[in-house]
Amino acid sequence: MPATTFKVAVYLYPNVDLLDFSGPAEIYSYRSLDGPAPFEITSFAHHNPVASASSALVYVPNATFQEVEASLEMYDVLVIPGAHFDTIPVFIDSIEGKQLAQLIKRFSELPPRKETGQRVLQSVCTGAVLVASSGILANRIATTHHMGLEMLKEVADQAAGGRSNITVENRKRWVDVGTTGAGVRIITAGGVSSGIDTSLYIVELLAGREAADWASEVAEFDRRDVGWGAST
Amino acid sequence: MPATTFKVAVYLYPNVDLLDFSGPAEIYSYRSLDGPAPFEITSFAHHNPVASASSALVYVPNATFQEVEASLEMYDVLVIPGAHFDTIPVFIDSIEGKQLAQLIKRFSELPPRKETGQRVLQSVCTGAVLVASSGILANRIATTHHMGLEMLKEVADQAAGGRSNITVENRKRWVDVGTTGAGVRIITAGGVSSGIDTSLYIVELLAGREAADWASEVAEFDRRDVGWGAST
Repeated sequence: MPATTFKVAVYLYPNVDLLDFSGPAEIYSYRSLDGPAPFEITSFAHHNPVASASSALVYVPNATFQEVEASLEMYDVLVIPGAHFDTIPVFIDSIEGKQLAQLIKRFSELPPRKETGQRVLQSVCTGAVLVASSGILANRIATTHHMGLEMLKEVADQAAGGRSNITVENRKRWVDVGTTGAGVRIITAGGVSSGIDTSLYIVELLAGREAADWASEVAEFDRRDVGWGAST
Repeated sequence: MPATTFKVAVYLYPNVDLLDFSGPAEIYSYRSLDGPAPFEITSFAHHNPVASASSALVYVPNATFQEVEASLEMYDVLVIPGAHFDTIPVFIDSIEGKQLAQLIKRFSELPPRKETGQRVLQSVCTGAVLVASSGILANRIATTHHMGLEMLKEVADQAAGGRSNITVENRKRWVDVGTTGAGVRIITAGGVSSGIDTSLYIVELLAGREAADWASEVAEFDRRDVGWGAST
């Protein structure tokens, strides 16, 4: 029996930070030594094409927002990348931002995917702030870019309509927030390049230690499970 | 007098490894604290759109191959990303591969850019093999992905029509190959994520140590100037 492929959906939006999702996309697209790729990635967006924060990298997404919204239960992993501090508040207040917050909330309430028994919501960098805008980080411990700690608290409080009791960790590669009532595991990465470390952690959770070690070797990336800069 | 912007050209081709160029593009697109972005990036390709090795990330390049070919002297930095070991030999033998090899050779023979006094040819991962196909790595020391060392030697030898006397270093984040007769500095990165370290090194060369430290902090990336895995 062939192993089930893990399905990853990556949301793209105008001015999204390109390494926030390119790091995870690189890791999730590793080929195993003896068979097909264990993960299958779908990019989706409200816009087509959609330009990242570097106007040099403009993307043609695989699917529309509505298509992924309509088949949300098909995905094991939903990746929410971040953007510059100027971009995030404007995006949260937009119609698209509100639709994304609803999508995130609905994803967090899905049962584990039938085929794999898994469901992971992964934010990278200030993508955690977009997750917070959905209200699901209240009473939880999370992280984000080390320059975005205050913004994460503020948006979590706004979503709670008062005090969210969120605890924001600083300079962590990632914080595993824990699982929702439905069984969705929320994992928040630190800034930008932390998305690479965090994706390797998620590969380990879903596909095992050996798979993560191999993906790490292919990418020539030393995983750091401590805080960024913690060793200096 | 405003500082001159460094201009970076990034070549994209079908099945290109996405982190090989997304790492550099992320680093070169950092914003300085007090002014405009010091680097300006142009992506270019023979194809539009052009799909990376992950079919989830498909790109609309900024310029055609011919446009950049016609204005090559405008660029301070030319980035040549790599691809999977299956892709590289087929690409080298194609018409596009031969055109790229000519472009690389011509770039290596340009004088430093008038406005900045700089010229850097940067390969990432098996992009070094594409650089070798132009013949300019004969009698030099270079690096590539740790699984591509033999391929780099073979292609350098083929381009030399015999023994190239290339020395290939293993498990380095990058090797600064030195400058060509014209004054173009060639810098070869190791595998995949090494492109991030290497781009920070090039930012330091061109824009100074403080700029590189800032770009590194924004990306939450600890630079490693030793070999990958050397500390373990």
